[in-house]
Amino acid sequence: MTVAPLDARLRLPDGPVGVAVVGLGYWGPNLVRNLNECEAADLVCVCDSRPDALERITRRYPAVAGERSLERVLADPSIEAVAIATPVGTHHKLARAALLAGKHVFVEKPLAASAEDAAELVALAEERGRVLMTGHTFLYSPPVNMIRDLIRAGELGETYFISMSRVNLGIHQPDVSVVWDLGPHDFSILRYWLDETPVMVSATSRGCVIPDKPDVAFISLEYASGAIAHVELAWLAPSKLRRTTIVGSRQMIIYDDTSQEPVRLFDSGVQRDEPQSFGEYQLSYRTGDIVSPHVPPAEPLSLELTDFCTAIRTGSTPRSSAELGLEVVRIIEGVCDSLASGSPVTLADAPMRV
Amino acid sequence: MTVAPLDARLRLPDGPVGVAVVGLGYWGPNLVRNLNECEAADLVCVCDSRPDALERITRRYPAVAGERSLERVLADPSIEAVAIATPVGTHHKLARAALLAGKHVFVEKPLAASAEDAAELVALAEERGRVLMTGHTFLYSPPVNMIRDLIRAGELGETYFISMSRVNLGIHQPDVSVVWDLGPHDFSILRYWLDETPVMVSATSRGCVIPDKPDVAFISLEYASGAIAHVELAWLAPSKLRRTTIVGSRQMIIYDDTSQEPVRLFDSGVQRDEPQSFGEYQLSYRTGDIVSPHVPPAEPLSLELTDFCTAIRTGSTPRSSAELGLEVVRIIEGVCDSLASGSPVTLADAPMRV
Amino acid sequence: MTVAPLDARLRLPDGPVGVAVVGLGYWGPNLVRNLNECEAADLVCVCDSRPDALERITRRYPAVAGERSLERVLADPSIEAVAIATPVGTHHKLARAALLAGKHVFVEKPLAASAEDAAELVALAEERGRVLMTGHTFLYSPPVNMIRDLIRAGELGETYFISMSRVNLGIHQPDVSVVWDLGPHDFSILRYWLDETPVMVSATSRGCVIPDKPDVAFISLEYASGAIAHVELAWLAPSKLRRTTIVGSRQMIIYDDTSQEPVRLFDSGVQRDEPQSFGEYQLSYRTGDIVSPHVPPAEPLSLELTDFCTAIRTGSTPRSSAELGLEVVRIIEGVCDSLASGSPVTLADAPMRV
Amino acid sequence: MTVAPLDARLRLPDGPVGVAVVGLGYWGPNLVRNLNECEAADLVCVCDSRPDALERITRRYPAVAGERSLERVLADPSIEAVAIATPVGTHHKLARAALLAGKHVFVEKPLAASAEDAAELVALAEERGRVLMTGHTFLYSPPVNMIRDLIRAGELGETYFISMSRVNLGIHQPDVSVVWDLGPHDFSILRYWLDETPVMVSATSRGCVIPDKPDVAFISLEYASGAIAHVELAWLAPSKLRRTTIVGSRQMIIYDDTSQEPVRLFDSGVQRDEPQSFGEYQLSYRTGDIVSPHVPPAEPLSLELTDFCTAIRTGSTPRSSAELGLEVVRIIEGVCDSLASGSPVTLADAPMRV
Repeated sequence: MTVAPLDARLRLPDGPVGVAVVGLGYWGPNLVRNLNECEAADLVCVCDSRPDALERITRRYPAVAGERSLERVLADPSIEAVAIATPVGTHHKLARAALLAGKHVFVEKPLAASAEDAAELVALAEERGRVLMTGHTFLYSPPVNMIRDLIRAGELGETYFISMSRVNLGIHQPDVSVVWDLGPHDFSILRYWLDETPVMVSATSRGCVIPDKPDVAFISLEYASGAIAHVELAWLAPSKLRRTTIVGSRQMIIYDDTSQEPVRLFDSGVQRDEPQSFGEYQLSYRTGDIVSPHVPPAEPLSLELTDFCTAIRTGSTPRSSAELGLEVVRIIEGVCDSLASGSPVTLADAPMRV
Repeated sequence: MTVAPLDARLRLPDGPVGVAVVGLGYWGPNLVRNLNECEAADLVCVCDSRPDALERITRRYPAVAGERSLERVLADPSIEAVAIATPVGTHHKLARAALLAGKHVFVEKPLAASAEDAAELVALAEERGRVLMTGHTFLYSPPVNMIRDLIRAGELGETYFISMSRVNLGIHQPDVSVVWDLGPHDFSILRYWLDETPVMVSATSRGCVIPDKPDVAFISLEYASGAIAHVELAWLAPSKLRRTTIVGSRQMIIYDDTSQEPVRLFDSGVQRDEPQSFGEYQLSYRTGDIVSPHVPPAEPLSLELTDFCTAIRTGSTPRSSAELGLEVVRIIEGVCDSLASGSPVTLADAPMRV
Repeated sequence: MTVAPLDARLRLPDGPVGVAVVGLGYWGPNLVRNLNECEAADLVCVCDSRPDALERITRRYPAVAGERSLERVLADPSIEAVAIATPVGTHHKLARAALLAGKHVFVEKPLAASAEDAAELVALAEERGRVLMTGHTFLYSPPVNMIRDLIRAGELGETYFISMSRVNLGIHQPDVSVVWDLGPHDFSILRYWLDETPVMVSATSRGCVIPDKPDVAFISLEYASGAIAHVELAWLAPSKLRRTTIVGSRQMIIYDDTSQEPVRLFDSGVQRDEPQSFGEYQLSYRTGDIVSPHVPPAEPLSLELTDFCTAIRTGSTPRSSAELGLEVVRIIEGVCDSLASGSPVTLADAPMRV
Repeated sequence: MTVAPLDARLRLPDGPVGVAVVGLGYWGPNLVRNLNECEAADLVCVCDSRPDALERITRRYPAVAGERSLERVLADPSIEAVAIATPVGTHHKLARAALLAGKHVFVEKPLAASAEDAAELVALAEERGRVLMTGHTFLYSPPVNMIRDLIRAGELGETYFISMSRVNLGIHQPDVSVVWDLGPHDFSILRYWLDETPVMVSATSRGCVIPDKPDVAFISLEYASGAIAHVELAWLAPSKLRRTTIVGSRQMIIYDDTSQEPVRLFDSGVQRDEPQSFGEYQLSYRTGDIVSPHVPPAEPLSLELTDFCTAIRTGSTPRSSAELGLEVVRIIEGVCDSLASGSPVTLADAPMRV
């Protein structure tokens, strides 16, 4: 998969894509704000069943229509695409309806509440020739892309392991666990960096505040390449922590998107010299410079929506493809299965078309 | 278990305990230096098969005898106790010989290379009425004790979970994995804080540099009280990280023994109000002050050796008891079993006499 | 001076104050955004000579009129007050015209480009019975106010000294030096904390990038109480640094408004016991807990504008009073005199009416 | 001045230099420990008037003689050099006596309690052909030398300014102010980096705890090259801070010798394009990578003592030359004059022979 550089100021040859935003809760207004400033999109209308939510937006963006009925949105021929930012439980139904109505569909992460539902959406989009994309925003984050480039350029050598922490005193979601809420970020980043999907997941969790609703989880993932990853997720933590360590055979990285230096490259490592007779190993340790490369700023959400519109106009596969969205749901399901059974779960081999 | 305050300047009523240090590799000289300054001990001799190791020490401490033969050390009636700092694989044999010779025994962590061996030593010490103690130095660290006091005083409320990272670009041990090398620190601290032993462990690891020799491990532990813990251990990491987060229902702590503020207490949390009808929960979030209590400095190793001598003279149980040392070995074995089988491992209920 | 608590949602009894914003450069749009959401104000119009600047704002706020002529703004009886956010060199002329037209006036910091001009404005406002206020926003910042409360409550004991650094790779202003640009922040904070004005200032600077235009300055201030302060200002620095240390006889504070813990209180210090004979002093050192009090968030600019409207309606003196604004200009002038002469400058005693 | 690389394991061709350490207070034992391990030196004896101080050392180093009489030390022909670590007020008298006795002399910083005294020692050493060296240990610190190399290689471009903070809750010295105690560190580093001595110094201070005995000082220094420097010194501070910022026209550095990354190089800056007509400047800002170069560890004190012995045997000028030591004393005197007069002080041009 080649990642084309994106530019949020892109103007598409055949004009902007007519878009409706469905769902104006916590995240929807961010889509509205970005689509409103995106040269590739023409934000035609917003849709929500709550009149006050509609009014707040239409007052701020007088050129945008407010619509309570999804049916009317889907029937509007000036709307080519819908961006869905509703609770996870409704993703499948709404995305399905939009695809059946011939719309291109952008769905906030995760793509659906089950792998079966997600797979049906992927198949439907392919069958109808529509773009289906999941809102895995981190795939458009400049530090995440810089790290991907470093990995692909061989700067890290073999990727030994990745350890990720994403914790905070965060809002307990009413409908889903911390795995469904925060997991998509890390699982999509891992997929993007490693270009492979885990073969085994294993997890421990606890519902500290609400019984049986995990608000902390420790998740291990194993990959066919030998790489392993660990993801710590929590809505309960003394302070915000976003720390990812990537250990390679040649160099190592610390990635922290809350830091002024989000990517730090450590030229350190251990090298194994030729094994001695009798299986003894001679090791040499190396500690070199640490570099914080300058990461040019960019708004990921803006790049993501431009990628969506570009895919619609040009037929390209968006970086945050439907398949990747499906894979992420499969991993979440695997983690939940592991939590339920108390045992590691082997992930079914999915034919990856990306 | 009540923890008595310790004072490294303690003078014992019946005079100092005659001690020999066995093993002058990496750690042994630290024992020598501390025993030499400990009022409760009289460092009689050091023992190692390597003449140059002996000479380095005896030149520095002319009053201490150097001895190549362990037999002669064990036969010397002026030596009441031995402190063993040899490779793990030799702990059982040496400690056993010393106990059989009627000596009190201090063994560097871990107590032995298998739970069976460790249990035999515990039984032997009890049978012979000798003190057997493991060098779990963190049990004598002032921040670790301050946190134990905070937990016991109910300051944290219920302990929800503990997340620990102990990583570094560290020396690969020739004989053991990172679990045997670094694990004893965290497993002994967890035991000391929680006053219970895990019922289930589950782990993932990789031998990145040397195949089949884990140098990174992610370990989950579950406790009967409902608490869960996670321990990340690595000899491969871009920078040293010693970060432990303890999340309680009332307050939270970050513990970092490399920081100038090793204990930070966060008066933050989430509270569940009475459940509404239909199983809905109302949550309230609280963010309060953060306090870094002043932790009076003290050298843990010095306190530890004083505790050993005190136990010999007074019959008290040392804080780092033989049973605790055994428990730690049981946990390590459980982790290794989980790594071998790829499945969680239930730890056999051990009758805890501590 | 008593500081009344402020609430940005305050609704004034006699209705909101009709306001015009003059100057839509870098800072003006922030005033517009805040006044637009401020219950105490009615943003009637914006004024700028550049049509495109006007258009950007009026497109976003359709209810606000755009006006290129200041005369027409000042002639409009629905406009009770003007908020001036133009270059410093124009403050005096514009504020004077507005006061003469009977308007209340809010001027961005610094109040004027010379103490003489500032004093004339203060006198004119008093004569006409109009509110004149300077935009020293930090006086409305929650951490700055928490520290003022701690000082006033005697928590620090005697204030020994204050050391402030405000450096960044910042924009070189075209019209003024770094002293006029960044100095007002620290000088107003010092005035607000210490409740006194310095008696002596002394400074060193360099125009590194543009000759004779200081972009780095080191400024010492001495106060009649014995307190001393130092302010380091720079537009040239490897990284952003906002660090203020306040050392008192009982406790100390580190204030950093870029930190998640903006106020840190250190219960540490040195105590002098009774002097011995022969002038020898016995000192005792104390290192206690460190507390980061929770600082409830609030937008300072919003509180500031509410304070302005409240002063207009109720006759109260705003926290960022005209006199304080004048004092700050006097200090800046003193610093510039010191830079020109290469010697310390004694500040003329100003009759302080605050 | 070329800085030759030093190696603490150096063996001198004509055998080690016989050395006596005079003064066994706070710092003397560090000299003893280092000289004892230094291949280039033969620690013959230690000298102090207090028997218990002598005994502590001779018990630890049985091969070293203890001597209460300086006269006997100076009369001993096996002692070629003395290292003086007594209170500042005695440096001149002791160093003078040693030089007159034909010994080479190492004096702890500062060289003497007045520039006149220091100059007399320099002249005497030259007259007698003896090595005189001051213990400015930071001149042997690896990060300080790395920065010197970067400056000399032109990596920073023109050195615009240097800002240094060296503060701590530190011990109030009984005999001298914070300027005499901490100032030598920064003044010697500045001299070493800039290769010039300041032409003007100006300072503000306060004796917070003991009247008239400065425990905090803010010191500005101006150099003929146009560079300026500021040094903040304090024995009173909430936490230890060792932060030096060096701003050059091409790159910038943050140096912090308490950090795991003591040198951080910022490829950032502002560039002035050709001046426009009418004196307007066009500026361009650049923010690039940040590099923390690996600084190989070394013990500065060990290198310093090797340099001393090498100078004795080979006739080379030690890096921390007598002249540099004299310059540092001149700067301290200038600072004290500025504090006394309240005005900037011009430093007399010293003929620099280094």
